[in-house]
Amino acid sequence: MSRNSPQARLEASLARIAACEPQVRAFVEYDSDNARAQAAVSGRRPGLLDGVVVGVKDVIDVMGFPTRFGSALFAEAGPSRVDATVVRRLRDAGATLLGKLKTTEFAYTDPTDTDNPSAPGHTPGGSSSGSAAAVAAGMVELALGTQTVGSVCRPAAYCGVPGFKPSTGGLPLNGVAPLAPEFDTVGMMARDMALAIRAWQVCASLEDIPLPTVRIEGLRIGVLSDPLFRAVSPVVQGALDHVAGMLASAGAILVEIDTAVDHRALRADHRALMFRSAALHHGALLERGDRLGPNFRLAIETGRVLSYAECDAARDRLRDARSRLQAHASNVDALLLPPAADVAPEGHASTGDAGLIISWTVMGGPIAVMPVARRQGKPPTAVMLTCLPGNDAWLGSLAIGMEALERQMEIE
Amino acid sequence: MSRNSPQARLEASLARIAACEPQVRAFVEYDSDNARAQAAVSGRRPGLLDGVVVGVKDVIDVMGFPTRFGSALFAEAGPSRVDATVVRRLRDAGATLLGKLKTTEFAYTDPTDTDNPSAPGHTPGGSSSGSAAAVAAGMVELALGTQTVGSVCRPAAYCGVPGFKPSTGGLPLNGVAPLAPEFDTVGMMARDMALAIRAWQVCASLEDIPLPTVRIEGLRIGVLSDPLFRAVSPVVQGALDHVAGMLASAGAILVEIDTAVDHRALRADHRALMFRSAALHHGALLERGDRLGPNFRLAIETGRVLSYAECDAARDRLRDARSRLQAHASNVDALLLPPAADVAPEGHASTGDAGLIISWTVMGGPIAVMPVARRQGKPPTAVMLTCLPGNDAWLGSLAIGMEALERQMEIE
Repeated sequence: MSRNSPQARLEASLARIAACEPQVRAFVEYDSDNARAQAAVSGRRPGLLDGVVVGVKDVIDVMGFPTRFGSALFAEAGPSRVDATVVRRLRDAGATLLGKLKTTEFAYTDPTDTDNPSAPGHTPGGSSSGSAAAVAAGMVELALGTQTVGSVCRPAAYCGVPGFKPSTGGLPLNGVAPLAPEFDTVGMMARDMALAIRAWQVCASLEDIPLPTVRIEGLRIGVLSDPLFRAVSPVVQGALDHVAGMLASAGAILVEIDTAVDHRALRADHRALMFRSAALHHGALLERGDRLGPNFRLAIETGRVLSYAECDAARDRLRDARSRLQAHASNVDALLLPPAADVAPEGHASTGDAGLIISWTVMGGPIAVMPVARRQGKPPTAVMLTCLPGNDAWLGSLAIGMEALERQMEIE
Repeated sequence: MSRNSPQARLEASLARIAACEPQVRAFVEYDSDNARAQAAVSGRRPGLLDGVVVGVKDVIDVMGFPTRFGSALFAEAGPSRVDATVVRRLRDAGATLLGKLKTTEFAYTDPTDTDNPSAPGHTPGGSSSGSAAAVAAGMVELALGTQTVGSVCRPAAYCGVPGFKPSTGGLPLNGVAPLAPEFDTVGMMARDMALAIRAWQVCASLEDIPLPTVRIEGLRIGVLSDPLFRAVSPVVQGALDHVAGMLASAGAILVEIDTAVDHRALRADHRALMFRSAALHHGALLERGDRLGPNFRLAIETGRVLSYAECDAARDRLRDARSRLQAHASNVDALLLPPAADVAPEGHASTGDAGLIISWTVMGGPIAVMPVARRQGKPPTAVMLTCLPGNDAWLGSLAIGMEALERQMEIE
């Protein structure tokens, strides 16, 4: 059993689980025996993800595991008989499906009890709380999450793990619980960016299209001067400055952009559509007693009383904002952004704030979250990169290159 | 009254209407008196579209005109008391709203009696039949249409007028009749590309963001080698070769691309979602007697019996196709495409075929349709350019530059 064999990698994950899971509480459930059986046959038909140990957010179906949606109402659910499409593709590519990871209820904001392994006593963020925490603790190499607001980017940033949210409308959603399908996207967190991007290629069935080569020299990188994106803590600003400096040293041109978008109004409009969709898809749950979390219950109750006219007006305002954000993004190669105004908040009562992510979810392009070199004993910081929709492979290639550059700087 | 005053331009349009409309049949209704009153005050607050004479497809609300949706069921509709958002923006920018233009019933495929002014006796294409015909005949300078499948691009190509379909999800739809809102887009046809793009900027409220400068030299232009896009008539292939040659002469690099997408399956999946949406939005019309056109009736009836599972599966397959098309598009700057396999078919029994446009509507980027130099007495030919979503201003600028290049070649 070589050090990199599927079996060895699985046993390393299981050892980390034994050491960390009691404190981290990232898993809903995992199945060592089933995973060992998968690892034993992995590599018989060589795939892009041979032996990669994967955990899946518990709003996504994995064959043999119940899908509980982080909800007490589904605590007694039976095992799923099928994989979600994206999970089946990971499995077909040779990955080892180890277990299900904790999610806020229906991927909204009622928190889990998961701790942040990179900042014990702090929230890991949400809604993909277990996904980020399990990767950060080394209990899995790759985790799937979902994002409707900022549920992949925020936990990746708070836990200090590379994350990737693909373009809206690109990955299949079969077997993924809906929150607001017009925004819902499956995303990846992984031990390194290259693995996250490889997982995206597999989930999108794009293995046959090679990643482009991206040269940083001459790239135009937009930096936001909108007041909302300036109002960040010194440590977050420090992370942005660090990465901006790294890009500039490599020959990129930094371009200041003021979008003149009302990001707070955008947030309210996005929330209205999400609540309406939550009411549409999950409204019947209100009749099943009082076991729904207070945040998700309020989302459904609010969504139920929104009129069509209010939703149509909100959607049109979002269309305007999307056009404007895209028009600015099309004048540069990528945007460099803070994923949150500060590091992970202390405690587990809230999953933190997605206010700096929503606008880019609405813009619809891919988003890469890149942790910035860790300061000993401090919560992680990270930056985000985004660009126009459909440029996923290009942005992924850039993020992989930047990760290598950052490592090189650490070594020097 | 100067030659370019709003009044002079309106009178020129009215003169063209007097000369052409009896044969072309592009208008549902127009109001010379009201238009003269608008032209008289145009320019008091200088706007981007001062005095531009506009016609609007009759699925879009214009204050003071009934919206009849091209449907006998709405023949007696009363005047709309408000403008659609995009119409209000044109009006605020100084345009003269002259009248409503014929549409196939609810922007689907039951044809109008409109003739093609650039090829008498041939269909103008659809569903924005009156929009393309009115611009081609010089009866308006600018027309709004809508596209769910190929309803802006096809009539623009068949009538030989510049057309622009913006990125999906960018323009407000308030006051625009839904066919399938996830694909519906308001689009522009105009006497020249610069006017079409200016109208898009106004409709998107992006007047304050200047168009980028685009240099053709060094651009990578993708040309499809998928069999479907090779199976075009010699005259369409000639138009493609002409424009490809022009681009190459200006220093662009042509790149052959085989997407390996099943475009026919994509078409079937797109159709399923459109039918489902038609049933959702217009199903009640079936109960109002037998006055619906046969095509639209069948669309609704088919959509009614589609299951959620069928629609979800279709949507997921479209997501896969979208990812793949975008991945290929992201490796070039733009794609050069045929808008149809042949020129406008003879007669008015059908609006022609959108089979070469659907895939790009699904990809979601902007599409510019550029007529190619006319051959005396023959139906027009055209080419399409598309690129990743959100690059509307960039593509618009490229299309304007190419139109100038084409004109220059004609003069030389």
